[in-house]
Amino acid sequence: MKERTRSKEDTIQALHAVAAEMHDRMMRGEPPRMTLPVRSKKNINFDERLNVYKYGKKKTIRDATSLGSAHQLLRALFVTEFMEEMIEGQKSSTLREMYYISEGWGYGKFGSQNESNNLAEDLEIVTGCLREDFKLRPEEDGARIIGNLTFEEKNRRGEWMRINCRDDVGDSGYGVPYNVESEKLRLLSHDIDFMMAIETGGMFDRLVENGFDESARCGLIHLKGQPARSTRRIMKRMNEEWGLPIVVFTDCDPWSFRIFASIAYGAIKTAHISEYLATPSAIYLGIDSDDIKAYDLPSDELTSRDIEALKAEKSDPRFQNQEWTDQIDLMLELGEKAEQQSLAKYGLDFVTDTYLPEKLRQKLGIHIG
Amino acid sequence: MKERTRSKEDTIQALHAVAAEMHDRMMRGEPPRMTLPVRSKKNINFDERLNVYKYGKKKTIRDATSLGSAHQLLRALFVTEFMEEMIEGQKSSTLREMYYISEGWGYGKFGSQNESNNLAEDLEIVTGCLREDFKLRPEEDGARIIGNLTFEEKNRRGEWMRINCRDDVGDSGYGVPYNVESEKLRLLSHDIDFMMAIETGGMFDRLVENGFDESARCGLIHLKGQPARSTRRIMKRMNEEWGLPIVVFTDCDPWSFRIFASIAYGAIKTAHISEYLATPSAIYLGIDSDDIKAYDLPSDELTSRDIEALKAEKSDPRFQNQEWTDQIDLMLELGEKAEQQSLAKYGLDFVTDTYLPEKLRQKLGIHIG
Repeated sequence: MKERTRSKEDTIQALHAVAAEMHDRMMRGEPPRMTLPVRSKKNINFDERLNVYKYGKKKTIRDATSLGSAHQLLRALFVTEFMEEMIEGQKSSTLREMYYISEGWGYGKFGSQNESNNLAEDLEIVTGCLREDFKLRPEEDGARIIGNLTFEEKNRRGEWMRINCRDDVGDSGYGVPYNVESEKLRLLSHDIDFMMAIETGGMFDRLVENGFDESARCGLIHLKGQPARSTRRIMKRMNEEWGLPIVVFTDCDPWSFRIFASIAYGAIKTAHISEYLATPSAIYLGIDSDDIKAYDLPSDELTSRDIEALKAEKSDPRFQNQEWTDQIDLMLELGEKAEQQSLAKYGLDFVTDTYLPEKLRQKLGIHIG
Repeated sequence: MKERTRSKEDTIQALHAVAAEMHDRMMRGEPPRMTLPVRSKKNINFDERLNVYKYGKKKTIRDATSLGSAHQLLRALFVTEFMEEMIEGQKSSTLREMYYISEGWGYGKFGSQNESNNLAEDLEIVTGCLREDFKLRPEEDGARIIGNLTFEEKNRRGEWMRINCRDDVGDSGYGVPYNVESEKLRLLSHDIDFMMAIETGGMFDRLVENGFDESARCGLIHLKGQPARSTRRIMKRMNEEWGLPIVVFTDCDPWSFRIFASIAYGAIKTAHISEYLATPSAIYLGIDSDDIKAYDLPSDELTSRDIEALKAEKSDPRFQNQEWTDQIDLMLELGEKAEQQSLAKYGLDFVTDTYLPEKLRQKLGIHIG
C-alpha cells in the first residue's frame, strides 16, 4: 500500500486549491461551493477492489447562496489558513483547541465542537490529505501494546528511539502516539504469530498477568472501547507490513460488534479513508452470542438502547452476511449480553487456559501449548 | 512516612483476624459483626496532626441479626479467602473480576459491582491493609508522566527496569502502573523544580508539544479526570521523597475543584487512607473563576447539575476556607465555567508563554524564562 501522508508542500498546495477553487468560481460570477459525500449508514457501499466499505455516490452540495453554507465555506477558509500556519510553524493542535481558536474568526466562529470536527473531516475528503497532515490531533488516548515487537518512534527532538513492547516498557505497556505514519513510527521487528485486540482494560491486564502474550506468541493491544484512528491504523500496518493476523476479543453486546466492524470493514465516519484504517482479514474471536449459553456466562438483560442498536445493525450494510445476521438474531432472541470479564466466573485462568485456546483453535486453527 | 504496604504474611494474618473475630463471637454465643465508619461527606473531619481529612467518629455496625448484614459478613469471608488464594498464587484481579468470581459463592454472591467495590474498601478499613496488599486492582488506566525524572519499575519477570520519563518513552509518556509502592516502583532521580498535574489530555499534550517541561523545569502528569489512587499516591511520594511542590492545573468547574480537593485534602471514598494519598501542600494554579473575566475566556453557562455540585461543595468541610468560598461564590455569581483549552483563543502558545508563567509567579513566586 502506498504512503498515505503527504509532504508539507503537497498538503499546503492542496489547502490552497480549496481557496483557489472558491476564488475562481467567484471570478466567474458563480457562488463558491463544496461538494461532499453524504456521510451516513445509508451511503456506504462495499468496495470490491479495496475490500472495505466506502462512501457511495450520494452527495451534498454546500453552496454560498444559503447563509448556513456560506458560513461553512468561510470557516473552511479560516481553517485552511490555520492549518497552513501550523504546518509552517511545526505545531499541531487538538480538535478542541481549533474550536476555541475560531473565537477570533468573527462570522467564521464555530457554534460547537461537532462542527469543527466535521469540517476537519470534510477537508480530508476534499483535499485527499489526512488529519495528521493538517497537524490536527484527537483528544483521546491511544492504545497500549504489550508483546515482543519492536518499534522505532521519532521523539520531540527528532531522534529515532527504539522501543520493544515487552522489554522496554512498564506494566502499562507501550502507549501508541496519535500519529503512527512511517514519518513518526517504524515497524522494526517482531517474534509473534498474531495480534490480539482487546476491548477492556481489565481483560488486557488479565492476559498480561497470565503471560498470554508469551504462551500464545502474540501481541496484545488494548482498544479502549471504540478504537481511535491511530489504533486501527497501527493494526492495519502490522497486518500489511508484517503479515500478522488480527484477532479481536470483545464483550458480547451491540457496541462490541460495532467496534469489530470499524476494525474490519471501516467506520461510517471515516469511510473516506477505510482502505487506510480497516483490516478486512480481521477475525472476531468472541465473545459470541452463543458463548453465553455454551459457557453458561453471567449475563445482563439487553436494555432498550441495546435492542435499538442491534436493530440498526440489521440494516447496516457492514453486517449483511450470514455470520453477523445469526450473531445479532441470537442476541435478540436471548435478550442477553455478556462481558469479557464474566469468564472470571470460572477463575482467573479460565480465559487463558480454556476459552481463548478453544476459540483460537476453532476460528484460526491455532494450537497453543 | 512509613511504608504503608504489608508483607504477604502480615496481610494474610490480618485477613485471618477478620474470620477469627467472627468465629470468637459465635463461640461466645454472640452474633458476629463488623464495625465501620460512616463513609460520607457528613463524617469527614480535618485531622490536625496528619493535615488531611479523615473519617470521623460516626459508625455503622453490620450485625448478623439482620439478613442483609449477615449476607455482607458471609461475602466478607468469601472475599478474604479469595484474597488469600491470590496472595499465595501470586495473582491479582480487577474489582470487576472479583464481582464475577462471586457467582460461585451461593448466598455470598454480590448483587452489583458497587457492593464488591465497597466491601474491598471496608476490608481495607478493618484490616489496615491496602487494596494493593489484597492484590485487587482498579479498571482505570493510570496517569501518564513526561519530564526529566527517572523511576525504576519491577517488571513481570521480577527485574528492575530503569525508565527516564523524557528520554526512554514515546510521545504518550510513561504509563503509571496501578501499584506504585516501593516494592514495585522506586523514585531514583530527577532534575526538575516542581510537578504539574493537568486535568485534560489535550492540555497535557499542548504543554508537551510546547516543551513546557523543559522551559519551566517541571514534570507533567496527566490526571485523566478524577485521578486514580495510583496517580495521587505517586504525586504524594514525589512530594515527600523528592520534596517537589505539586501544582494542579484544571478546568474551571465544580468537578475540577473536587479533583483538586481529592489531591490536596483527601477524597471522601478513601478518607481512611488520606494521609497516604493526599498532598496537603498541593497548590491550585487555575483556571480560577476570576480568570474567566480577567482573561476574557470563552465560557459555558453552568448547568443545573453544576450549580447543585457547587452548592454541595459549600457544605463540604474540605472547602471551608476563604479562598474556596470566594472561588465557589464567584462561579455561582458569574453563572459560567471554562475549560483549560479555552486559553487557545489567544493562540497555541498563550498558555505556556503567558498564562502559566503569570500564575506560577503569582501563586508560587516561580519565575520562568
